[in-house]
Amino acid sequence: MLLPAGVRIDGRSGAVTPATGSYAKHLSELAGLYRDKAAHAAMVAGQDPLAYEVVDYRHQDSDLAFGTTIMAPGRVGDEFFMTRGHFHERRECGETYYTQSGEGILLLQSRDGLVRTVEMKPGICAFIPPDWAHRSINTGDEKLVFVWHCAPDAGHEYGEILEKGMRKLVVARDGRVEIVDNPNFVS
Amino acid sequence: MLLPAGVRIDGRSGAVTPATGSYAKHLSELAGLYRDKAAHAAMVAGQDPLAYEVVDYRHQDSDLAFGTTIMAPGRVGDEFFMTRGHFHERRECGETYYTQSGEGILLLQSRDGLVRTVEMKPGICAFIPPDWAHRSINTGDEKLVFVWHCAPDAGHEYGEILEKGMRKLVVARDGRVEIVDNPNFVS
Repeated sequence: MLLPAGVRIDGRSGAVTPATGSYAKHLSELAGLYRDKAAHAAMVAGQDPLAYEVVDYRHQDSDLAFGTTIMAPGRVGDEFFMTRGHFHERRECGETYYTQSGEGILLLQSRDGLVRTVEMKPGICAFIPPDWAHRSINTGDEKLVFVWHCAPDAGHEYGEILEKGMRKLVVARDGRVEIVDNPNFVS
Repeated sequence: MLLPAGVRIDGRSGAVTPATGSYAKHLSELAGLYRDKAAHAAMVAGQDPLAYEVVDYRHQDSDLAFGTTIMAPGRVGDEFFMTRGHFHERRECGETYYTQSGEGILLLQSRDGLVRTVEMKPGICAFIPPDWAHRSINTGDEKLVFVWHCAPDAGHEYGEILEKGMRKLVVARDGRVEIVDNPNFVS
């Protein structure tokens, strides 16, 4: 029988205690995500830094799971560290991202090509409607930590975003954060 | 079409901006909840204080809604201010309560009479499994504010808890918070 629990969330480190699972993505596992292939290859050949971790509290006997995503600060060329970006396999499933520390941009894209961004900073809970692809981008100098909530079986559909990219890029230009058209987007 | 949004949550006041709705419960609307009928009547005849408010960001086109609950500090007799306590109408729906400020106790009870408590304080996300009744109790001297997440159509089933009470009470005894058996519980 699934029992109640008090789950401690550290909004600075993103630690979840107790957690039911976690995974980490190093830059080497994110080939194809960044435009600047040479910069990506050089970083992978160097320290292959950790880009992000996901820690979860997930039980398939509930309709609701939660956890944290912990994104390192950094760039590959002029693009900030980002998650792969995905739709949910179960298209009826939405999600929320409640930022705990750091700053970033949540980039969203609908099936028919609408684009939206939501600022990520402490106190902002981003609402992701069902069937919007979403990618989070750490635009700050420190960790970006957010608490997510979604169905435990929402699933990840990475294919379309990996193949086509997203319509926008989030880049550093002259020390500023800019959201620009992705010249390589496959419409 | 349901659009993404950045929803600001004030962890001190519990304000949600933008919100889609809210309701407030004054003590007069919570008759029958407290053991000390005379104390309840006197408080209702006096200022009839606000006991708690619920503010939501809820769209029926998503599978996930969220919002805040803002509980005033206070007591009726030796019992701390509490929510009515409920099961979900849709028994497959769980919930989370992520405390933002203040302190309290989440009291939970399964259909077959198991009782659990979870400490409510900043940094603790309480996991409420499907089909566990849950009541939050403000045991502190300031507001207790928490962010909840659940299905927008989970629904509230108040009847059983209102009729029978819960198996435990959370009371002040000699300046301490104690969890004691409810002598009036109808098993």
